[in-house]
Amino acid sequence: MSEATTQNKEYSVIGRSFPKVDARDKATGRARYTGDIKVPNMLYGKILRSPHAHARILKIDTSMAEALPGVKAVITAKDVPSTMYGISPARYDETIFAIEKVLYVGDKVAAVAAVDDETATKALSLIDVEYEVLPPVLDPLRAMDDDQPQLHPQYPRNISVEIHQNFGDVDKALAEAYHVRTDTFSGTRTSHVPMEPHAAISKWEDGKLTISCSTQSPHYFQYHIARVFGLKMGDVRVMKTFVGGGFGGKLEASGAEYVSAALAMKTGRPVKIVFDRWEVFTHHRGRHPQHITLTTGVTKEGKIVGCHARFIIDGGAYTSLGIASAYYAGAMIPLIYMFDDYRFDGFRVHTNLPSCGAQRGHGAPQPRFAFESQLDMIAKDLGMDPIEIRRLNARKPNTMTPNEFQVNSCAFTEALDKARNISGWDEKKGKLSSDKGIGIGCGGFISGNGYAIYRTRLPHSGAVIKVSEQGDIATLYTGAVDIGQGSDTVLAQMAAEAIGINYEDIKLVTADTETTPHDFGAYASRQTLMSGWAVKQAGEEIRKQVLELAAEMLEANVEDVDIDRRVIYVKGSPDKVLPFERVANEFFIMRGPLVGRGKYAPPKLGGKFKGAPVGTSPAYSFAAQVSQVEVDEETGQVMVTDVWDVHDCGQVINPMLLHAQVEGALFMGMGEAMYEAMVFDANGKPLNANLGEYRIPTALDVPHVVSDLVDSYEPAGPFGVKEVGEGATLPTMGSYANAIYDAIGVRIYDMPLTPEKVWRAIQERKRM
Amino acid sequence: MSEATTQNKEYSVIGRSFPKVDARDKATGRARYTGDIKVPNMLYGKILRSPHAHARILKIDTSMAEALPGVKAVITAKDVPSTMYGISPARYDETIFAIEKVLYVGDKVAAVAAVDDETATKALSLIDVEYEVLPPVLDPLRAMDDDQPQLHPQYPRNISVEIHQNFGDVDKALAEAYHVRTDTFSGTRTSHVPMEPHAAISKWEDGKLTISCSTQSPHYFQYHIARVFGLKMGDVRVMKTFVGGGFGGKLEASGAEYVSAALAMKTGRPVKIVFDRWEVFTHHRGRHPQHITLTTGVTKEGKIVGCHARFIIDGGAYTSLGIASAYYAGAMIPLIYMFDDYRFDGFRVHTNLPSCGAQRGHGAPQPRFAFESQLDMIAKDLGMDPIEIRRLNARKPNTMTPNEFQVNSCAFTEALDKARNISGWDEKKGKLSSDKGIGIGCGGFISGNGYAIYRTRLPHSGAVIKVSEQGDIATLYTGAVDIGQGSDTVLAQMAAEAIGINYEDIKLVTADTETTPHDFGAYASRQTLMSGWAVKQAGEEIRKQVLELAAEMLEANVEDVDIDRRVIYVKGSPDKVLPFERVANEFFIMRGPLVGRGKYAPPKLGGKFKGAPVGTSPAYSFAAQVSQVEVDEETGQVMVTDVWDVHDCGQVINPMLLHAQVEGALFMGMGEAMYEAMVFDANGKPLNANLGEYRIPTALDVPHVVSDLVDSYEPAGPFGVKEVGEGATLPTMGSYANAIYDAIGVRIYDMPLTPEKVWRAIQERKRM
Repeated sequence: MSEATTQNKEYSVIGRSFPKVDARDKATGRARYTGDIKVPNMLYGKILRSPHAHARILKIDTSMAEALPGVKAVITAKDVPSTMYGISPARYDETIFAIEKVLYVGDKVAAVAAVDDETATKALSLIDVEYEVLPPVLDPLRAMDDDQPQLHPQYPRNISVEIHQNFGDVDKALAEAYHVRTDTFSGTRTSHVPMEPHAAISKWEDGKLTISCSTQSPHYFQYHIARVFGLKMGDVRVMKTFVGGGFGGKLEASGAEYVSAALAMKTGRPVKIVFDRWEVFTHHRGRHPQHITLTTGVTKEGKIVGCHARFIIDGGAYTSLGIASAYYAGAMIPLIYMFDDYRFDGFRVHTNLPSCGAQRGHGAPQPRFAFESQLDMIAKDLGMDPIEIRRLNARKPNTMTPNEFQVNSCAFTEALDKARNISGWDEKKGKLSSDKGIGIGCGGFISGNGYAIYRTRLPHSGAVIKVSEQGDIATLYTGAVDIGQGSDTVLAQMAAEAIGINYEDIKLVTADTETTPHDFGAYASRQTLMSGWAVKQAGEEIRKQVLELAAEMLEANVEDVDIDRRVIYVKGSPDKVLPFERVANEFFIMRGPLVGRGKYAPPKLGGKFKGAPVGTSPAYSFAAQVSQVEVDEETGQVMVTDVWDVHDCGQVINPMLLHAQVEGALFMGMGEAMYEAMVFDANGKPLNANLGEYRIPTALDVPHVVSDLVDSYEPAGPFGVKEVGEGATLPTMGSYANAIYDAIGVRIYDMPLTPEKVWRAIQERKRM
Repeated sequence: MSEATTQNKEYSVIGRSFPKVDARDKATGRARYTGDIKVPNMLYGKILRSPHAHARILKIDTSMAEALPGVKAVITAKDVPSTMYGISPARYDETIFAIEKVLYVGDKVAAVAAVDDETATKALSLIDVEYEVLPPVLDPLRAMDDDQPQLHPQYPRNISVEIHQNFGDVDKALAEAYHVRTDTFSGTRTSHVPMEPHAAISKWEDGKLTISCSTQSPHYFQYHIARVFGLKMGDVRVMKTFVGGGFGGKLEASGAEYVSAALAMKTGRPVKIVFDRWEVFTHHRGRHPQHITLTTGVTKEGKIVGCHARFIIDGGAYTSLGIASAYYAGAMIPLIYMFDDYRFDGFRVHTNLPSCGAQRGHGAPQPRFAFESQLDMIAKDLGMDPIEIRRLNARKPNTMTPNEFQVNSCAFTEALDKARNISGWDEKKGKLSSDKGIGIGCGGFISGNGYAIYRTRLPHSGAVIKVSEQGDIATLYTGAVDIGQGSDTVLAQMAAEAIGINYEDIKLVTADTETTPHDFGAYASRQTLMSGWAVKQAGEEIRKQVLELAAEMLEANVEDVDIDRRVIYVKGSPDKVLPFERVANEFFIMRGPLVGRGKYAPPKLGGKFKGAPVGTSPAYSFAAQVSQVEVDEETGQVMVTDVWDVHDCGQVINPMLLHAQVEGALFMGMGEAMYEAMVFDANGKPLNANLGEYRIPTALDVPHVVSDLVDSYEPAGPFGVKEVGEGATLPTMGSYANAIYDAIGVRIYDMPLTPEKVWRAIQERKRM
């Protein structure tokens, strides 16, 4: 056992695989998603979207649509606030409807509300929009050129974000290195593909807006929607329904919310908008395609001495969460390996394509693919084993990255060793038959972000727990957002553990800006650590109050009294016990409602670099993944047959959910690595914005997965936790590319690793 | 201004007529009652009810009903727990379905759940029940006779409740009195007639029962339903929907809840049951018909020296809340007049008629009608003015009734004087034209009951308030139950006043056993005082936390800092101010969720009388009402033309709601006094269980009402409040009877005061 685990204790509720609190609701179909909900008097909203990637709006004639029986409202930019919104801090560049120009195929132009879906769809076809089509910017590598059309007047040369950070002396380090490589890699625009599309029902009643929607963050929705419509936050209530997947794409309010709200205000009736699949794809906000050039130097022994990373990132039409994506692209590179000299230079550029934003792993997966690929190439150059070179450079606990990420727990080396052992690496590496190969990829990720997305001093999470008057149940009020990842379950376990009761005793009220305490929501793998802290503190406040009263009732010293799974006992006096419900009931009788409160604000992290913060999270996960592939040299088809993933995620709250998260992230990484890419024609029109032609992994594609763990305890996390939800996407892509190389000796630099690319590379190799 | 009002202070939020929080929802039809709600997969339940008043069930054949397509379940007593339930403490005598015998027309025999209402109705007709019809007990005055059939084996001689309480030496007092009268009065079985019938939707999911229903007390429903089905309370969640009137009839769970729950358990699908109007009437639980004999003695000057009250009370088939009704019938008599020697003897008997229970005013209105009638007769005997005799005997503040009701505030004399003044009594009494008359009636009522309905040490009310992280709104979590009377509004005003913010800032989460703190609910006019105390305490806990932090921020002593309508200021330093939201936001940042908690348990009241408690409420309201009538001597038709009601209800929270409550209670009293009675045929079959033939007052019937108040401050109430919701029923009945006497010189002893009775009395008078 490593030192880091010595703080582990025996837990009663956490660490056990309880079924998810909503498992039966979802399995039986009882769970009602926004699209399932009908409210009396409800209208159906539809958005008219631009057919052009770049065009000027000359005229909109809505008269025919308005005349259609059943149509209750037709609105365009002139009917709604022109306030610009967005989600990146102060980089607001969207409006509810396009005002002068449309910037991508799918940009919002007008909307209707009608008595049914069919009428609304028909009405859209009756809106006459006259456009002056403009030449689009489609190639991100040319977007900054002087001859290119300009998308936003406020972003010269179509530069959305420019970021340069330099730590140490990279040039010197590279100059002095034994071996230096420069390689260029690229990724594509992959999308979240949540099974549930974006959806919202807005009501406008008595000057108050109430929005039920599929969201990752009721708080950010509330903040931005209030801002755009000029309402106070207390007059905007955002309530999460069941969410059928978010993966980053539902962190910012979309047309579903803004437009349904505007239509509700116009009609005085509730309005529902559910995106169709084409809208989900074109609204996008998913992965940025990155063009990454890495120059990395090592010593003769394989020690990394410095790295210079350069990025050109395709942001699409609007900023969305692109500032953070661009930052993470560069900032996460030095997380898992130890070197001091690092520089990154990034440009996020605008193109007339769907806007990119946050997607599981945020900006980090493609750079990680690049780095893990290059590290294998370096190892080969040096004649080293890929795992050996990683062990040599692996980050150690209680160290700091050059860009001031303070790493506390880190069992990365143990993860590498375990991955080697359980995969049979030593027996397989270089020893498999000619069509088979094995490869390793690694990753690391943040456990929540130290800064909110907009400038605010609010704590990041709050929690309130109320024990019932009988003491039989406890209701946890949390603004944390279960988007399918299981946070409700994990927080219920943490609440029960902190109080000293059972998992089944916890009931939840979640993610409603009016009835639950503030929480920033589900993104950046923050909830287990951040919401968890608030919940743990609230639970402990209850435990403390109960134990104080129990001590009086048992005539014992409070420090001698403890509780475990509802039994309150005096240490060393086995006959002095009281059931929790007895004491909780007595508390209510004597003192009133038994309530606990908690909050979490991250500690001050890192410093500042030219005004922008560095050092980003209270804690970091680490993972090593070995993958085995089988390649058909005739067709270039790659089958991933086996994956061994070893994660350092701190204390596990629910092993079943944890491994499910690993598998989900791994399959999502597989999609990005092997299959997925949004494709556009020469005018910027999407060619595969549907589930038939946009290829995600199915049950037939996925490998056999062994998900394993290393002992770990994170002092900055409640009960020792850190993240798992996003981190497991990161090792996947590189490990596949490296396994393909091991199998057939070809290196693919561009994801996805399609049969066509593999086949072409095989032909190339054969020619040489 | 009386001494009692000197504790009044200037309030900012209470004392003002804000619109009800749900006014727009109700006015616009947005409010969704249980009957309006549809949930996915929902079935429709219907109850098969006995057509006989008294019969043995010989056989039930459900096979044809089960075979009907669309029928999902048919259940009888053998399919459900046989646990006896009820609502009176430990007097449980009902089962979900009748087991051996049915005891009234409408008793529950079987039920079905089907895919729609029509199929369920059809299925009922296919259930074949074989009965052996038994002779019914229909006359309460004969129910105790030895020759009568027995309804319940555990209640010999059909005696449901027998109660004898004797204070002082009544026989001596009456023997020594200057004048003694004995008169007998009676009332009828009137029903609540809520516009919304009883309704419930039950879900049984994963071992947990969730019931959305029209209820006055989620807590009692939860307690009893859990008990009957053998579940822990935490696994039974009861949620109030909008309630379209309760008036006492929705304080106990009905077949709507028990049967829908049983059907949901059987089918695994949500089941909705909505009573039809016939079921509402036959389920009843409304007013007990009482036969009241009063023997009252007075001095030569009109001072009451003693009273002996005897009651025979028709309870119908089951106990329901009849123990309390029987107690209140006798116990409330000496509340408003001061005399020491008092005895009451009551018998509540079982008949094969619908069960009687709690209805606005509970057991008190008919005895009050009797006493107020008799007091007028005594005044006439002595040649005194009716108001003078009341003034002479009127209860004074800070006195105790013989049965240990501790009266604090009491502005009854002031109410009498004001009623005399505003009605023009002195100009009218005995001076109106021969078809017109004026009369007075008085009343007094409890402000909540000192004892819960079942034996428990739970406080009576709890409240939690959470201020939002921006400090712009505050969410009040209360188990108090708005059944139309406006308690949500009143509690929101009290919360805002206690915190120091505005009425509009308060949002509510109410009456849900899982998400709101415990409260016993809406009955006995308890919520403004009892729930109000809990809310006030929760609000003050927030105020205290905010002012402490504000004092730090303003660098002032905390005792110098105060708040009014969101402005926090330092007394004497007009420039030192902070907005509430700024401090509340800072509190969240520094300390986490800003939460206040409150509870209320009544003080120990009165003592014990032969084991049963005496002294019942923390505070008592008083009222005097003058009514003017016009009588058509040809037809006996009485028109009530004017009413002047003067109430002593302590501090008023919302004058508009208060006067609406007075009017509602007054019109309900008018119905009982003038029109209403459930009528049965010789076999106990109801003849007018519908809104066409059961006559309630309409807009055309109601008099012009002046509702007025006297200054009053109740030290036992939060902000000085006491009740108004039920008390205003009490003076009405007597004042009408007395006005009729004043008009035409006939005395009607039996309510309702129908044209037939008045006409017959006129003929009688003419004959004499």
